[in-house]
Amino acid sequence: MGKIEFSIKEFGKWNVVKFELDDSLIPSDLPFIIPPKLTGTKGAILSGRGPIWLYGFLIHHYHPTKFIAVYDPRLGGAVVIETHTNEVKVGEVIKAEI
Amino acid sequence: MGKIEFSIKEFGKWNVVKFELDDSLIPSDLPFIIPPKLTGTKGAILSGRGPIWLYGFLIHHYHPTKFIAVYDPRLGGAVVIETHTNEVKVGEVIKAEI
Repeated sequence: MGKIEFSIKEFGKWNVVKFELDDSLIPSDLPFIIPPKLTGTKGAILSGRGPIWLYGFLIHHYHPTKFIAVYDPRLGGAVVIETHTNEVKVGEVIKAEI
Repeated sequence: MGKIEFSIKEFGKWNVVKFELDDSLIPSDLPFIIPPKLTGTKGAILSGRGPIWLYGFLIHHYHPTKFIAVYDPRLGGAVVIETHTNEVKVGEVIKAEI
């Protein structure tokens, strides 16, 4: 299986889930990836360089969290793409420390 | 609002949702995007050049479909990232016509 490593940074209202991988990760690795468990009812900010299908997998995985945002280095922030709370809105850019 | 255009190609077991956009699309446009309705109980294959947060938004939007796959031109196929059917598996690459 290709290499992927996760790290978590906890903040007040969200957790930052950062990943690093090498080029050896392939689609058939997806079912074997175990993303880190997030504690509490917070949002999840995803960050890392990787293929869109990896992001898709992680977005689906973290669907039960309070909201999901995707960090975009070009924006210097994380874009909220889904939310189950009024505290953040879809399309909002969270200026998060990554 | 930035420009985004969708097109749909219907196949037997999935619909291909293709999008084209220009660089003017920004995160705050997300709530105003209306992705095309998909008919029937098929999978959705997403294809297009765009930021990961746009994909995230679309993946969440099409969550109720039978499965979601993301087309990766480097693979020449679409990677299944979530599924509610036994017909396809997560990590499977569908050699779809795009």
